[in-house]
Amino acid sequence: MNSGTPTAELLERFVSVRQATLDACRSLSPEDMQIQSMPDASPTKWHLAHTTWFFETFVLSDLAVGQYSPFHPSFNYLFNSYYNAIGERHPRASRGLLSRPAIDEVFGYRRHVEQVLLESIPRLNVRDVERLKPIIELGLHHEQQHLELLFTDIKHAFAQNPLRLAMRDNVASNKKRVDLPSRPVTWLPFDAGLHHVGHAENEFSFDNELPSHRVFIEPFEVASRPITCGEYRAFIEDGGYTRAELWLSDGWHAKVTNAWQAPLYWEKYRNEWQVFTLHGLRPVLDSEPVCHLSLYEADAFARWAEARLPTEFEWEVACGKRPATGTMLEDDCLHPQPAFPDESGPQQMIGEVWEWTQSAYQPYPGYRASAGALGEYNGKFMCNQMVLRGGSCVTPRSHIRPTYRNFFPPEARWQFTGLRLARSI
Amino acid sequence: MNSGTPTAELLERFVSVRQATLDACRSLSPEDMQIQSMPDASPTKWHLAHTTWFFETFVLSDLAVGQYSPFHPSFNYLFNSYYNAIGERHPRASRGLLSRPAIDEVFGYRRHVEQVLLESIPRLNVRDVERLKPIIELGLHHEQQHLELLFTDIKHAFAQNPLRLAMRDNVASNKKRVDLPSRPVTWLPFDAGLHHVGHAENEFSFDNELPSHRVFIEPFEVASRPITCGEYRAFIEDGGYTRAELWLSDGWHAKVTNAWQAPLYWEKYRNEWQVFTLHGLRPVLDSEPVCHLSLYEADAFARWAEARLPTEFEWEVACGKRPATGTMLEDDCLHPQPAFPDESGPQQMIGEVWEWTQSAYQPYPGYRASAGALGEYNGKFMCNQMVLRGGSCVTPRSHIRPTYRNFFPPEARWQFTGLRLARSI
Amino acid sequence: MNSGTPTAELLERFVSVRQATLDACRSLSPEDMQIQSMPDASPTKWHLAHTTWFFETFVLSDLAVGQYSPFHPSFNYLFNSYYNAIGERHPRASRGLLSRPAIDEVFGYRRHVEQVLLESIPRLNVRDVERLKPIIELGLHHEQQHLELLFTDIKHAFAQNPLRLAMRDNVASNKKRVDLPSRPVTWLPFDAGLHHVGHAENEFSFDNELPSHRVFIEPFEVASRPITCGEYRAFIEDGGYTRAELWLSDGWHAKVTNAWQAPLYWEKYRNEWQVFTLHGLRPVLDSEPVCHLSLYEADAFARWAEARLPTEFEWEVACGKRPATGTMLEDDCLHPQPAFPDESGPQQMIGEVWEWTQSAYQPYPGYRASAGALGEYNGKFMCNQMVLRGGSCVTPRSHIRPTYRNFFPPEARWQFTGLRLARSI
Amino acid sequence: MNSGTPTAELLERFVSVRQATLDACRSLSPEDMQIQSMPDASPTKWHLAHTTWFFETFVLSDLAVGQYSPFHPSFNYLFNSYYNAIGERHPRASRGLLSRPAIDEVFGYRRHVEQVLLESIPRLNVRDVERLKPIIELGLHHEQQHLELLFTDIKHAFAQNPLRLAMRDNVASNKKRVDLPSRPVTWLPFDAGLHHVGHAENEFSFDNELPSHRVFIEPFEVASRPITCGEYRAFIEDGGYTRAELWLSDGWHAKVTNAWQAPLYWEKYRNEWQVFTLHGLRPVLDSEPVCHLSLYEADAFARWAEARLPTEFEWEVACGKRPATGTMLEDDCLHPQPAFPDESGPQQMIGEVWEWTQSAYQPYPGYRASAGALGEYNGKFMCNQMVLRGGSCVTPRSHIRPTYRNFFPPEARWQFTGLRLARSI
Repeated sequence: MNSGTPTAELLERFVSVRQATLDACRSLSPEDMQIQSMPDASPTKWHLAHTTWFFETFVLSDLAVGQYSPFHPSFNYLFNSYYNAIGERHPRASRGLLSRPAIDEVFGYRRHVEQVLLESIPRLNVRDVERLKPIIELGLHHEQQHLELLFTDIKHAFAQNPLRLAMRDNVASNKKRVDLPSRPVTWLPFDAGLHHVGHAENEFSFDNELPSHRVFIEPFEVASRPITCGEYRAFIEDGGYTRAELWLSDGWHAKVTNAWQAPLYWEKYRNEWQVFTLHGLRPVLDSEPVCHLSLYEADAFARWAEARLPTEFEWEVACGKRPATGTMLEDDCLHPQPAFPDESGPQQMIGEVWEWTQSAYQPYPGYRASAGALGEYNGKFMCNQMVLRGGSCVTPRSHIRPTYRNFFPPEARWQFTGLRLARSI
Repeated sequence: MNSGTPTAELLERFVSVRQATLDACRSLSPEDMQIQSMPDASPTKWHLAHTTWFFETFVLSDLAVGQYSPFHPSFNYLFNSYYNAIGERHPRASRGLLSRPAIDEVFGYRRHVEQVLLESIPRLNVRDVERLKPIIELGLHHEQQHLELLFTDIKHAFAQNPLRLAMRDNVASNKKRVDLPSRPVTWLPFDAGLHHVGHAENEFSFDNELPSHRVFIEPFEVASRPITCGEYRAFIEDGGYTRAELWLSDGWHAKVTNAWQAPLYWEKYRNEWQVFTLHGLRPVLDSEPVCHLSLYEADAFARWAEARLPTEFEWEVACGKRPATGTMLEDDCLHPQPAFPDESGPQQMIGEVWEWTQSAYQPYPGYRASAGALGEYNGKFMCNQMVLRGGSCVTPRSHIRPTYRNFFPPEARWQFTGLRLARSI
Repeated sequence: MNSGTPTAELLERFVSVRQATLDACRSLSPEDMQIQSMPDASPTKWHLAHTTWFFETFVLSDLAVGQYSPFHPSFNYLFNSYYNAIGERHPRASRGLLSRPAIDEVFGYRRHVEQVLLESIPRLNVRDVERLKPIIELGLHHEQQHLELLFTDIKHAFAQNPLRLAMRDNVASNKKRVDLPSRPVTWLPFDAGLHHVGHAENEFSFDNELPSHRVFIEPFEVASRPITCGEYRAFIEDGGYTRAELWLSDGWHAKVTNAWQAPLYWEKYRNEWQVFTLHGLRPVLDSEPVCHLSLYEADAFARWAEARLPTEFEWEVACGKRPATGTMLEDDCLHPQPAFPDESGPQQMIGEVWEWTQSAYQPYPGYRASAGALGEYNGKFMCNQMVLRGGSCVTPRSHIRPTYRNFFPPEARWQFTGLRLARSI
Repeated sequence: MNSGTPTAELLERFVSVRQATLDACRSLSPEDMQIQSMPDASPTKWHLAHTTWFFETFVLSDLAVGQYSPFHPSFNYLFNSYYNAIGERHPRASRGLLSRPAIDEVFGYRRHVEQVLLESIPRLNVRDVERLKPIIELGLHHEQQHLELLFTDIKHAFAQNPLRLAMRDNVASNKKRVDLPSRPVTWLPFDAGLHHVGHAENEFSFDNELPSHRVFIEPFEVASRPITCGEYRAFIEDGGYTRAELWLSDGWHAKVTNAWQAPLYWEKYRNEWQVFTLHGLRPVLDSEPVCHLSLYEADAFARWAEARLPTEFEWEVACGKRPATGTMLEDDCLHPQPAFPDESGPQQMIGEVWEWTQSAYQPYPGYRASAGALGEYNGKFMCNQMVLRGGSCVTPRSHIRPTYRNFFPPEARWQFTGLRLARSI
């Protein structure tokens, strides 16, 4: 490829995204990066290697020069996540047992793949660039997804340790707003109508946001901001966790089985609610958006509040083209922040907490998964999961869009998941 | 109540529905009616008692005369299914351990409740009738649902017995059509447009079919008839159960865990596929609609066939107001029958097999559950389940409608569940 | 065989043992005989068929005439318990799902096998009689073992039913001694010495009682009678179920996992301990021997009482040749009875309750299992089980001996299992 | 305490045992020392801390000076293994999740406790020394037990890694004897007689070896050496893993459930058996003692060989006062070695592999556990475990005695466990 222009921007973004991942680990020890606290979470070290494997497998192995040989013969087995088309792989629940390769070897793996990629791409011809550019872009968004998981997974891991470790120094980076009384929720109405939803721009999106299509939405209204910890405390104090009639059947079963009494990471200490954060344990602030809720808890809260969760399309319509002004990863807060009392709504659509919707994660009409292994990226998970919208305080700002569909099983609680109410009119 | 007219019809239907339940048991022994082959299934005896408990709890206990005392003090505990508002209950998985009350006592319970109801209703005043009539109607549809379950549950129970028992005499009532080659599927197209879906008539419907509302549907086409055993055998022979790329991720996991190789009740014997039916074991007929599939198998078949499952609204639009002409319970076949080769499509929308849709079971916009215990009937299950449409060969004809939403978890296979293909245009 | 003498006595016993099994079922309905409340228990109907299968398989199939053909081609699969040498079999945990053969067919199976056996045996030659007589004897003891299991299994099954059914009429057959204060335990000392243990007589014994051999026993003493419910209540009230230091490690784990608070079948009702018996629910009597204990509870009680369980050889030496004077099946009490206050000890060695010993169930020196399938009767279970001695209130009197070794895993509680203390001197 | 003599030797041993533990970790990375591959195994780091906690809790906290304050307030919670009397503790299965304290802090903990102990002990008065000396001695044997576990646990952890890592450099320290054909087993006979067994010396023993007592043993013979890999291969090739009749019932169940086909760490590669060792993967040598067998496999092999396992007392009598000449930890081989062909038997009683006996682990007559928390050391495990004798190639030489009773559940395979045959005469 003669001129750097078409790829220069991409490579710049490549360097920046890869650096952000490294930065996230700056306070972690080799042992911190080793541990896996549950099958759904992965060790930091594994995230570091897997995101690299993605570029090695889908970009470097496909280089026109055809001369790349893998960094290590076993890494394809160790760091493939779930691509059946790529072959057999290490069992997910045993990722925490791989004490080798050591963290330094993984850092070396990262540097090696980065270097080959940065050197090779500028030399490609136009056709190759056209083929590989979307894959590199996908790889960068993939890395950003894992960056968010890296934070939620290490939070879960640290929460298992009775020492109640902070990932970050408790004082310096915990720059939070004062716990002022939050403004009461107001309701923003929307008329019935036919809407275009899904991704319709030229920029990158995941295939699950496609195709853009029309949906008819009956009249509804959404709350001006997410539910706060103070509001959620009222639900708890009103017996929210003891009243079966407020819960979905599977939700009540999950509550009983797991003995849920409050959001994940809340613990009562001397009659006061404390919350474990990436800065350690500290009192719950009433004005903060509540997070680490399952869909079941969000749904039960909504029923208690005589409202419901929005559908993913109501959410998307309400969000409109709103820019990402809420707290996100670049703010380095690592926890959702209270809404500004003087802002007009809907507030905090993007940022703070992922918002559970009442929509099951299903393909859009006309959805087509990519061909080959990358077709496994999204499509095969379109069952038994619920859509979340809006991004969280650990989502990178350049990663999110109003049409972005995140998805988790309804019982998942270790992501920064909260809720916003909606009502049919 | 002075004149019998408004309730006479209802009571006539009451007598007829209750009799149909009794008829279903005519060939079963006390031991047959005792056993429970898995937690999801219930003993016949329990179905007989529970449907009676429903009338006792929601109708008789509410009689204006206020003088009804329960048939037995423990039956409320033993035969409540899942109504938290009614109180504690016997654990679901242990229903098969209740050797007492004996079957004769349960029959006595049925007669007692029937008698009190038939005597009391005609004496009620208009206001009481107005309140109780919808509940009796609900109770009758509830009994018809359990009548279908009674057949599928006893089929599952008999399938555990190596003697491969027929529930019904193998010759007399197994009146099936000849296994002629079925006509190839044709595709029936539908334009994009705004449609009213959900129940909009005066007659009975469940609350989950309400409210009627508008949906916009992109252009699509549906297959002229359900997939047959012959077509499904081609999927098996083409490695359908060995190719991960055809399956949803959870589906592949279910396949591996449960070692699925074919639909439930298929067994290979001397290189020929046999199927266990309510008339015993016999060869699979190519022209019959395939049934006892999980959603996962239906979905994998559709992907293999380069098509997909319809959404529940596509299905409803395609069905239109089509009358129930397919094989249903009253035909006493107890197995789906081949499509008539000379009929114009879509064929067998109602009857033969429940058709999996790609729609998760979720509330319609503006959905409201009933107040009180009956609000637990449908609403609390609206998570982790998929919608099925159309009724089966063991659904009573007076029980079904085009707007009827059945729902089961995606891995369920013991109902008469099959599929019809759809495609986006 | 010319003269009936050598077999006449055997056939008489055959008739009598088989009749005792039938008698045990006299108050049970077809549904009662169908149910299986846990994998370790079997349905009554299965016991009736399996004991018959034993004679069919090991005696009739071996008749010199060689012309016996099985009653039903599937019964060998359905009613084999655990004999790998005989072939594949129905899974143990699914015995309760066999609604067919119906109970009447099983009774017919019993009569058929009995008739063939009673007709064939007298016609055999001496050599055949010699070979088959020990197998018939084994079959009768086998049937008596299952007779005891029939009672304990149906007790467990009835205990799952909230109706708290009595197997027998509550008044007529519950002839119990008055609940007088029991005499305090006294200690009976034994000197150190070399003893012969194991079976050394000509009569029948199981192979696990062989060979008779010598053991050296250090000085010890045993309690004059089993521990009573009153004494066990004191243990409970002294925090026996809350003090980990009294328990074996696995025992404490079992206690916590199963939430044990008292012996099986005890339930507290309005602050008074009730016990579920084969005659229904009634208050615990202080003077009765405590039963339905696991080894873990017996062991914890002993530690609390500053004593220990006897070894199986201490027990055997203490028992000596004591005749079976305690309560046994023929007394038709179906529950252990208080010791007579005026009897000299050791009392109730035989009868009332099986007594846990501290001996693991292991082969005697020189033990040899029989050849062929019958070698699986005892030997393969000699691991992970503990020896119990002395028989219970539902053991047939003609079935027990002082050298008799019963065995169950340490957590088993559904047999009539109690304890007697011992101490080293 | 005025003169150092009585404690000098003890403190010297203290320094040497503690150093041996450190030496064991010399080739391990922080991540290696972090991981826990199954609930029964512990991370190296945890072993390092727990053995230190033992001294801190049972020695330092009890110092006459009374002024010791714990190194860290949470370590008592984190590093208590199973002492209920000491209080609540971190769940066993989650030891691998404690990324903090970091390995360096644990090394610091070790140094701190060592320093306080080394400084304090010489200053104590005679009475305190008398009380603490046996506890320190116990602590050192405790540390040596964990040293052996450290090797077997890290071996298990490395075996989970597809990279097949060697703990030690493959060439330098793998000094093995040549794989010469081993001499056939010969049988060494012992007459019937009364024997003293158990520990009767002045030196240290665990309480489970006490009291010394008399047992009568019927005539028997033992094999001249342990079973080799070559002999075990013959068992495999003769269908040992496919013939239910050779196995205990629970053993066959374990075999089927776990899909055992060979000893743990054997893997077939291009039709040749390989074995994973602490030096990496390499071919199985026929002349080596077979190891990593469960009791069930050892027992099945013995039945196949028409012999049996010895009882623990037969083993002890056969061993006599034989010195520890076999391969042990100090030889730094980390794998059992072939027997010398020219040595008279019984060979390798001490060293090479722990030998399964047919004796369940039970208290000796007159056994008394220590008072207080240390009473939990052995006694509470005397159920559901089998005795092993003789030590292994990773047992420290100063740790073992002929009366030493090791114990594991019958299905355990990750220790260096093998077998020696015995026969009744």
